[in-house]
Amino acid sequence: MRKISESTIRRLSLYLRFLEHSLGQGLTTISSGELARRGGTTSAQVRKDLSFFGSFGKRGLGYSVPELTAQIREILGLGRSYRVVLVGAGRMGGALAQYEGFRQRGFTIVAIYDSDPAKIGSRWKGLVVRDVNRLGPDLKKEPSDIAIVATPAEAAQDVVNALVHAGVKAILNFAPVTLDAPPDVIVKHVNMAAELETLSYALASEKDKTGVGRRA
Amino acid sequence: MRKISESTIRRLSLYLRFLEHSLGQGLTTISSGELARRGGTTSAQVRKDLSFFGSFGKRGLGYSVPELTAQIREILGLGRSYRVVLVGAGRMGGALAQYEGFRQRGFTIVAIYDSDPAKIGSRWKGLVVRDVNRLGPDLKKEPSDIAIVATPAEAAQDVVNALVHAGVKAILNFAPVTLDAPPDVIVKHVNMAAELETLSYALASEKDKTGVGRRA
Repeated sequence: MRKISESTIRRLSLYLRFLEHSLGQGLTTISSGELARRGGTTSAQVRKDLSFFGSFGKRGLGYSVPELTAQIREILGLGRSYRVVLVGAGRMGGALAQYEGFRQRGFTIVAIYDSDPAKIGSRWKGLVVRDVNRLGPDLKKEPSDIAIVATPAEAAQDVVNALVHAGVKAILNFAPVTLDAPPDVIVKHVNMAAELETLSYALASEKDKTGVGRRA
Repeated sequence: MRKISESTIRRLSLYLRFLEHSLGQGLTTISSGELARRGGTTSAQVRKDLSFFGSFGKRGLGYSVPELTAQIREILGLGRSYRVVLVGAGRMGGALAQYEGFRQRGFTIVAIYDSDPAKIGSRWKGLVVRDVNRLGPDLKKEPSDIAIVATPAEAAQDVVNALVHAGVKAILNFAPVTLDAPPDVIVKHVNMAAELETLSYALASEKDKTGVGRRA
């Protein structure tokens, strides 16, 4: 399989959301134009995105909604469920622990960890916050595929080291810091401020176009 | 200015984070190799990313940390501050309202709105949660550039309509739904589940490589 870009994966994720919605409404076929509109892209891009993985759909007839849904789910590795551990029971951790979208997609948060004695032992939506020192031993007993790190910046690297040592292969990092991990461990950095920066960039370049605030 | 990809903007945002860190440590120059390592990419990609905006750095000498910091801040539209309104005082809204990274980058949340009478009037980090019906009139009096939508899916489109009507030009959407807006309004969809899906995709394609769980 060719290496495909993260932008493609993100669009597949958007197409899947819309396909599942369409499936729920009983639609049987969908055009690349409709997928493009919902994915904020072009029909040509939709066809290109899907062509990475083989040949889907029939020219003029569009895509079969149930088939394409199943195929994208498989492409995205969603044909199975994932056990996820969450480290950091702060505000971001709290929001993530309650996020319904995760479970809907097959990502189940099975344990929450923190280092704060005031938080350890407290109950979060059916889960008890555990001492972060138990992370290693717990993962040895009950391995998880994916971890979410939502600790303060200064704690994140130690947590990642412990996760790597315990065999976790994929980490979603919300801490505002770049983390080191061995090449066989995937670390994905979610940067909330960067999301706003894509907007400020767009606002700034709009102004460039209109000549207001143009850079020298 | 050429249209540049969102991936480039995201990498610029990562480079900036590292440059600011380096600036804080008193470093004066930095190589494309170092930026590449921190941005999880290659030197060639760093040079390509920066070449979109003009010519930076000197061959063999690297980039001036203070200059490149200032230039990327300007590129990303961070030479000014932004007033941001937040709609949706739920768990995700709460996490976002408290997120220190926003203010550090010049994004100040100036007001929070909700439709729940139990939440309206409560105090959140110095801001009082306002009735969402006041959104339009408030924005007429005190315009904002950017809005964050963190409502349930079914409320999001109405909120976006009100924001668009009130002249907001850039919207960051955390609601799990695709939103319609006129072409001059930028809507950026943040999909937490999609972040995990880039990991599940990577885990699944790793397995493909090793022959375990290979797809037919």
